[in-house]
Amino acid sequence: MKPKGLACFAVAALALAPMAAFAQAPTPPNPPLAPLQEPAKTLPVPYADISPAMQAFIAKPLNPDWNDQWKTGAEARAYANKQAAGVVPGIPAMLARLHVTMKSETMAGVHVYVLTPDSIPPENKGKVLIHVHGGCYVLFPGESGTTEGIMMAGFGHYKVISVDYRMPPEAYFPAALDDAVAVYKDVLKTTPPKDVAFFGTSAGGALTLEMVLRARQDGLPMPGAIAPGTPMSDVTKTGDSFYTNEKVDNVLVSRDGFCQAATVIYAHGHDLADPLLSPVYGDMHGFPPAILTTGTRDLLLSNTVRVHRKLLRSGVPAILEVFEGESHAQYQFDDRVPETKEAFTEIADFFGQYLGH
Amino acid sequence: MKPKGLACFAVAALALAPMAAFAQAPTPPNPPLAPLQEPAKTLPVPYADISPAMQAFIAKPLNPDWNDQWKTGAEARAYANKQAAGVVPGIPAMLARLHVTMKSETMAGVHVYVLTPDSIPPENKGKVLIHVHGGCYVLFPGESGTTEGIMMAGFGHYKVISVDYRMPPEAYFPAALDDAVAVYKDVLKTTPPKDVAFFGTSAGGALTLEMVLRARQDGLPMPGAIAPGTPMSDVTKTGDSFYTNEKVDNVLVSRDGFCQAATVIYAHGHDLADPLLSPVYGDMHGFPPAILTTGTRDLLLSNTVRVHRKLLRSGVPAILEVFEGESHAQYQFDDRVPETKEAFTEIADFFGQYLGH
Repeated sequence: MKPKGLACFAVAALALAPMAAFAQAPTPPNPPLAPLQEPAKTLPVPYADISPAMQAFIAKPLNPDWNDQWKTGAEARAYANKQAAGVVPGIPAMLARLHVTMKSETMAGVHVYVLTPDSIPPENKGKVLIHVHGGCYVLFPGESGTTEGIMMAGFGHYKVISVDYRMPPEAYFPAALDDAVAVYKDVLKTTPPKDVAFFGTSAGGALTLEMVLRARQDGLPMPGAIAPGTPMSDVTKTGDSFYTNEKVDNVLVSRDGFCQAATVIYAHGHDLADPLLSPVYGDMHGFPPAILTTGTRDLLLSNTVRVHRKLLRSGVPAILEVFEGESHAQYQFDDRVPETKEAFTEIADFFGQYLGH
Repeated sequence: MKPKGLACFAVAALALAPMAAFAQAPTPPNPPLAPLQEPAKTLPVPYADISPAMQAFIAKPLNPDWNDQWKTGAEARAYANKQAAGVVPGIPAMLARLHVTMKSETMAGVHVYVLTPDSIPPENKGKVLIHVHGGCYVLFPGESGTTEGIMMAGFGHYKVISVDYRMPPEAYFPAALDDAVAVYKDVLKTTPPKDVAFFGTSAGGALTLEMVLRARQDGLPMPGAIAPGTPMSDVTKTGDSFYTNEKVDNVLVSRDGFCQAATVIYAHGHDLADPLLSPVYGDMHGFPPAILTTGTRDLLLSNTVRVHRKLLRSGVPAILEVFEGESHAQYQFDDRVPETKEAFTEIADFFGQYLGH
């Protein structure tokens, strides 16, 4: 069947745009409107329409490290290395489960992992997904940053290039973005842009959006589709769920926690409202079709919803997936959880509709 | 341009379905998992990417009537009449603003309002949208229930039939559904099913889903599309946002408030987990394409998300729109708010993609 996704989505999106899409950080009303006082509450673990394996992630207590306030790249890296040591030993079994092969390579001077599924269906041949991992711009160095890429290769049956971008203390803003865009340029030497997608979660979701903004700045063609997963699209702490889901999200926990400290380290004095750090403030007209994924307990629910709205208001085909009860990025914590396969299958299906057209 | 929406969505949806779609109320884990203790918090009024007019709705204090515990249909009706008296005087101006004409009629013995926009584009001619209003199955009698229908007629440029279904104390479950399906049957005498859509918000969102379940039971053909807005899809108080958004949603406020009391009156002793009262437990395979709308502060965010997930898991093309900061049903409170036009334009565009095919 000939995919007609772009056509049908584009009709809806172009007809819409009743509200202006804002291109800079808004100012709060003056005088301020009265806030709401939310009382203390007991939140049972939700179970309806949620697999027992995902319920176990939702039931975890608040991340005990949520308030780590790293001051330097070296401090963040020490934590990242400790965390990576817990992740890396599980990767061979994960590759085996998902029937994916991993190769360490260098592209345009950037270290990458090329992730190839054992079977690539004919319609996915020649297509390339560029993966930018999450971790608040400081976590998941080296192989530890590949897990989401492996899931996409395995569940989606696409070739994935996972960018091991430079991070503090080696390099600061915009090094991660420079590396990711350098890989895109290199991929373009052999692959038409319409056969390329960008994806990633959290900081990787932000980088996905930032790559599109930077590609346009650099005069590069747009990729065929993007999947910004629960993107750190606004690191100025603006967005309602920074408040409503504070101490409800058991992963990030607070807008003032480790992830904000890490982002400040990466930004290295740069304005946090710059669209290359807070891409919700970028001009999204002409962006490629996008699928966004988040959860109802996600601290970045608003960051995700706002990007979805802004894309639609900018005439871009964009769809939103929200998982019941999930906190930040939990849809990609474990490939053995049914909702993980579901999320990646949805993203891969979306790429299948849009890539190549 | 030839709409190809059904084809492209169906490809994605059919390829997906990695999780079983549950068809009955689930049981909680035993022993129960430990709940999360959420502390008291101050929630500022969100402003980014939100119009000042919508900010004013978000800034309202908790609905002062949220804990009204009506015990009888007569008590609920007394409140409904008082509320309607505040709504009805504004309707002529609203009809004028939106260039819509309203006529009171009877179809198959059911009282309806036929809402006709001054201009219907050629592609919408002959198409009929059946509107079922919200109000917890007891509120918005008569003309007061037409506002959402007027918005859809005005913003969407479709003919709308708004069903003034019987409510307590005149009639109880399943009278509302009987009336709505009777109108559908009558419409089918002159209109092909693929040219008909159902839509509504809250109880109207639930009725939209219940109409599809009942139509199938009765051997009627499926309509071309549906738009269940923040549906009361689970009145067993199951769903995470019943807890996370308690006393955050300033409209419904609590799962134990007036809306639950009203639903119990309407159910009249019937099992609340029956899919004709809690349609999230219905079998959704073969449902028509659906667009769902909610807000991040909506008490029924989870009720909406769970229906979206279940539709996708059942192979149904379904998309989800979530508005930043909005509480229950606020996207249809006032036609002069930019986000209202945006929401109805999205629904109308969706109908435009799917109706007639």
